[in-house]
Amino acid sequence: MESELIPVISPDLTLHHLLTACSASMANTNSLNVRVFSLNCWGIRYLSKHTPQRYAMIGDMLCKEEHDIVLLQEVWSEKDYLSMKKKLACSHPHSHHFKSGVIGSGLAIFSKHRIHETFLYRYSLNGYPYMAQHGDWFGGKAVGMAVLKLGSLTANVYVTHLHAEYCRDKDSYLPHRVVQAWELQQFVRHTSAGADVVILGGDLNMHPQDLGSRLLMSYTALRDSYVESAKFDGCEDGMTLIADNPFIGKKELGPFEKGIRIDYILFKGSSKTDIYCDFMSTTKGSVPDHPFPYSDHEALTAGLRLETQTPTETDSDRQRTSKNRDSAAGKVAELVDIVTEARTEVKVGLHCAERMRYTAARTGVMGLALLFLELAIAAVPWLALGAEQPFPRTSFYLLAALCFAILLTTTLLYLFYTMELKSLQGAEDQMRLAVGSLQEKLRGFPLAQPHNAQRRPPEGHEPSAFTPEE
Amino acid sequence: MESELIPVISPDLTLHHLLTACSASMANTNSLNVRVFSLNCWGIRYLSKHTPQRYAMIGDMLCKEEHDIVLLQEVWSEKDYLSMKKKLACSHPHSHHFKSGVIGSGLAIFSKHRIHETFLYRYSLNGYPYMAQHGDWFGGKAVGMAVLKLGSLTANVYVTHLHAEYCRDKDSYLPHRVVQAWELQQFVRHTSAGADVVILGGDLNMHPQDLGSRLLMSYTALRDSYVESAKFDGCEDGMTLIADNPFIGKKELGPFEKGIRIDYILFKGSSKTDIYCDFMSTTKGSVPDHPFPYSDHEALTAGLRLETQTPTETDSDRQRTSKNRDSAAGKVAELVDIVTEARTEVKVGLHCAERMRYTAARTGVMGLALLFLELAIAAVPWLALGAEQPFPRTSFYLLAALCFAILLTTTLLYLFYTMELKSLQGAEDQMRLAVGSLQEKLRGFPLAQPHNAQRRPPEGHEPSAFTPEE
Repeated sequence: MESELIPVISPDLTLHHLLTACSASMANTNSLNVRVFSLNCWGIRYLSKHTPQRYAMIGDMLCKEEHDIVLLQEVWSEKDYLSMKKKLACSHPHSHHFKSGVIGSGLAIFSKHRIHETFLYRYSLNGYPYMAQHGDWFGGKAVGMAVLKLGSLTANVYVTHLHAEYCRDKDSYLPHRVVQAWELQQFVRHTSAGADVVILGGDLNMHPQDLGSRLLMSYTALRDSYVESAKFDGCEDGMTLIADNPFIGKKELGPFEKGIRIDYILFKGSSKTDIYCDFMSTTKGSVPDHPFPYSDHEALTAGLRLETQTPTETDSDRQRTSKNRDSAAGKVAELVDIVTEARTEVKVGLHCAERMRYTAARTGVMGLALLFLELAIAAVPWLALGAEQPFPRTSFYLLAALCFAILLTTTLLYLFYTMELKSLQGAEDQMRLAVGSLQEKLRGFPLAQPHNAQRRPPEGHEPSAFTPEE
Repeated sequence: MESELIPVISPDLTLHHLLTACSASMANTNSLNVRVFSLNCWGIRYLSKHTPQRYAMIGDMLCKEEHDIVLLQEVWSEKDYLSMKKKLACSHPHSHHFKSGVIGSGLAIFSKHRIHETFLYRYSLNGYPYMAQHGDWFGGKAVGMAVLKLGSLTANVYVTHLHAEYCRDKDSYLPHRVVQAWELQQFVRHTSAGADVVILGGDLNMHPQDLGSRLLMSYTALRDSYVESAKFDGCEDGMTLIADNPFIGKKELGPFEKGIRIDYILFKGSSKTDIYCDFMSTTKGSVPDHPFPYSDHEALTAGLRLETQTPTETDSDRQRTSKNRDSAAGKVAELVDIVTEARTEVKVGLHCAERMRYTAARTGVMGLALLFLELAIAAVPWLALGAEQPFPRTSFYLLAALCFAILLTTTLLYLFYTMELKSLQGAEDQMRLAVGSLQEKLRGFPLAQPHNAQRRPPEGHEPSAFTPEE
């Protein structure tokens, strides 16, 4: 904890420390091993199967294994979190439960190392409140950040859970999930500039090649511990939702008979710290000596090795910079493609939200018209076209109640869709800006002949020409 | 634009650039002047007075003045933003309108310098939807961030607008505004580590000595351009909501007869960049040759001077570090006090939200009981105690409709208050953690006898002892 002894004016002087460290001329390499664990706990009280028993199993295992950092998702109940906290008091004295939405974000972090600060970013889009059977909206999906000290290093640790995918062929939540991935990469990128190490774990609900995954990985330069690991022990292809898990129904996996990979542990270092994944493992759908597994998801463990160097520019650094320069243009070009693809997806979402809002407005107007018609018939007898009893009182009240119900519901829906539209438009604006900026960067590369250069606007063109719709 | 020529793998290599710059041994000082403008435009279409004329005046002035960075609040209408964008196309070719909530966040930025990226953080608490007359909830209050290049420097520019204060004596929105200030300082602090310059402008709806202002300024180490300015020309005490403004009613200002200061331009540099405020001005409630002022708020202009030095540690740096060390303990102790005060305010909010949720639940249960009673009377004739007509049909339906309305309303309110509670609890958790971490830092200071040491727990105590309620 020697870093605690350095007095600071404001608590965010990491950059300053780094820069001061620059003046040291001797290169000094330290190695630190960090074991990271991630699990979607499937902790819906009374609905998930064997919840108390599974939490007990998870707690026992974590107590025994003593991972440095434990990232949990779907810890929906505060009670379950608190009993876990009690159980792990010795092995993981530091913890935080991120609160959001109606029932919480479900995100929790347990750590052997002191958590100095936490911060939560709630995604602007997260499904629909009336899709109560899916429940995502009530969960208030978010990304939680915790600032830890690992020795003398500052680690930004993120835990997140994105909107679930209920039907891959006709995924109405895709624009929401893409916007979540967009906001996730923004949050990680912008908040991690001062960190020496970045670790992100959680249930992304996206396959490795999905648009959102590519967006996140390309933009943040986070590396996938499954891909990077020197040694792997776990399910085929690193899958984390597998057919062999007794809690998984065949139907859930759709065409992916054996399973899918949607949980991740990602990481990156900094100019001060190199980071390597020495091993990675997943559970395999069962736990020895127990009748059922920890959860419907498989648990992930990654062994990361952090190597610190005082950042004096060495020959190898210079070589690396030169190599970077060669591949950078290609990477930026790839990023332009991915962001453009994401923008298209957001536009699909915009179109859909506009249609829904229009439907809500139209229905509301019809409800209002019906109400006026009814009032008119009741007030002006000749409108009833000579019927003996112009308007039976019971029918009158029932119809009026129906009209009011329609008006109220459509008003609420209209408000909700307007907010959805604003969020989608906001994300689209940000993406357009980012594409423009990336394209400008691309034009700066001397050897700019990326694989998709033919789709770029000509040199003299302003990036805004790319987006004539504004 | 030479910085654009350096190829990068990921777009967030600012830190890397900085560190590479370290290796240069020659100190090199450059000076750059940046003029920043901030105004709450009071742009509620059809409700604010003379909106089109005022926007025209603002546009003309901005075109002429050519500030580097223009930060606007309450640009509620997209149309008004777009016409302003058109007007400022020559003077400020880069702009962004931040979208949020039902009617937008009202935040906009215009810039002479390219905006590379934008990011929006929506505050988790922002009033109540049923307080439609106040309207803050519908605005989706947020803090918008734009990443700009000022020469070779990376500037993070923030624009924000916090929840209004409608009654200072009995301010029911105080916990919400304190949580907004908390989230604002978190967002600025965590996203600005990689920036060379930080500029924040906007309508904070807080007086300089208010809890939220102190929280923001102490935690982020942002400096107030009014306080720091070498030259000031404007209203007395830098006030931005003044009695001399014809749009301001006497009642609005309450006991502050002359006016209040609630709009700010704040700034800070970094280890690479020093920043000074050369001048600061505000409008004074009128505009020459015009019948009325730009807005009900006064406009702020700050002239900032950025001085860049390649960060080689010099003697003066070392002296500064030593000075910092002396004052750091006091500052951390002050911060502990402020965060503790904020925590108390959040707890008041928690108590209030719990009471409101309880009331909603109780009313809902009563509505349900009434419905059951009604159904029972209708179904079981002897319950009507021998009345001739057991239950008049009209009354039956009216009563049922009333019960349903009560049930629906209370359910929505219950959900809303639960979300409010979660956000308040989340903020309180984060504040507790921050206080613990700050206290640990304080214990590390060798000369730790800060002005409020008597309130600190003894050396051996864990910070958690400070918060026995968890």
